[in-house]
Amino acid sequence: MVRLTLTHDLDQLHQDLVEMATRAETAIEESIQALNRQDAALARSVIAGDDVVDELERAIEHRCLNILARHQPLARDLRAVSAALKVITDLERISDGATDIGEIVLRLAGQAYIKPLVDIPRMAELATSMVRDSISAYIQKDQHLAMAVTLRDDEMDAAFERILMELTHMMREHPESVAQAVDFLFIAKYLERMGDHATNIAEWVIYLVTGVHPQDKELHEAAQQELPTGEQ
Amino acid sequence: MVRLTLTHDLDQLHQDLVEMATRAETAIEESIQALNRQDAALARSVIAGDDVVDELERAIEHRCLNILARHQPLARDLRAVSAALKVITDLERISDGATDIGEIVLRLAGQAYIKPLVDIPRMAELATSMVRDSISAYIQKDQHLAMAVTLRDDEMDAAFERILMELTHMMREHPESVAQAVDFLFIAKYLERMGDHATNIAEWVIYLVTGVHPQDKELHEAAQQELPTGEQ
Repeated sequence: MVRLTLTHDLDQLHQDLVEMATRAETAIEESIQALNRQDAALARSVIAGDDVVDELERAIEHRCLNILARHQPLARDLRAVSAALKVITDLERISDGATDIGEIVLRLAGQAYIKPLVDIPRMAELATSMVRDSISAYIQKDQHLAMAVTLRDDEMDAAFERILMELTHMMREHPESVAQAVDFLFIAKYLERMGDHATNIAEWVIYLVTGVHPQDKELHEAAQQELPTGEQ
Repeated sequence: MVRLTLTHDLDQLHQDLVEMATRAETAIEESIQALNRQDAALARSVIAGDDVVDELERAIEHRCLNILARHQPLARDLRAVSAALKVITDLERISDGATDIGEIVLRLAGQAYIKPLVDIPRMAELATSMVRDSISAYIQKDQHLAMAVTLRDDEMDAAFERILMELTHMMREHPESVAQAVDFLFIAKYLERMGDHATNIAEWVIYLVTGVHPQDKELHEAAQQELPTGEQ
């Protein structure tokens, strides 16, 4: 009976997490749509939506603490709850990033863009899909899907480096483009950070499934390699 | 007896938190020292130190979950543990920011700087003191000290805006300075984010002491204001 209730509570937790993740994904998409179309109303709606995400974070956290207190879950269930507590922090930061982009859109309102947007929308698509897959991996406890998310973060970093080079070049050649290029640079940085957050989520899924956090594993392996052969 | 043990466990938790916070503060200071002196060895040591902070985060989290499972704390003790779970995420991100600065220092190695560093070291001092005070406020459950931290975040934002304007101007006038100016801009952004993280910690302290998170209070007051007068 207790077991059944724990399952029920974990299901509820999953539903809340999916809702929060969906809102974070939508925030990314809409912030970039707002940028593309110079749509100040949409940017304002993204900024306003961040409050809902913050409230969801608080509600899910409350639910997690309740589950811990009521059921004292063990092993994988305990890891599921402790991973959820971390995942919501990353989702909240992703939504913050979309808000930061929304604020830049408002600042750029009415200005002609110095260049067509190509890599930025691609980074946003990548970020959205990484968030979606990392949360699916959490719900389905799918270690391989989580691993695939962490690998896609390299694509994200490469896209950021490309934008950085392109914008740096543009600022040097066309000093009048500096102010806007700086704004685009920050947008690219916010998107790159969203990729980092999705990667964090995916790493928590790997911990949830395997009991070992990928970064602990790296540390452990590095420590092993430093040992003299006889002590391994 | 159980009460005594809970107190003991919470004391241990506080010690760990102070250690983690001290490491985060040192990381900020040393990353900016490394930048000032162009000290690649120090930058590498900041980057290496981030692993220790990550391990501490995992250890404290483990301790928190243990306290929740063993003691099922209530009211303020429960809030102290749930706040600690959030605080460590912010401390870890602060250490990440110092690592990001360390990596820029390595990239800038051997280059003459385009300008003397004035506002960046000031921002770093501000960030360090905000982290120190927010953790003191947590340990001493001092709501007023926490409030003072949140107010200092405005100074941080103002310093960032000043650097942004100065560097944007410099890039326009001296296109050869662009690459380095972009690096300084990111450093300023990382420091400004550290101020945000210290502010988050301070807000969790206010929640711990009062039972109400400042952002929930704002939401609540905004909701109240939207009600027709008769329903208040």
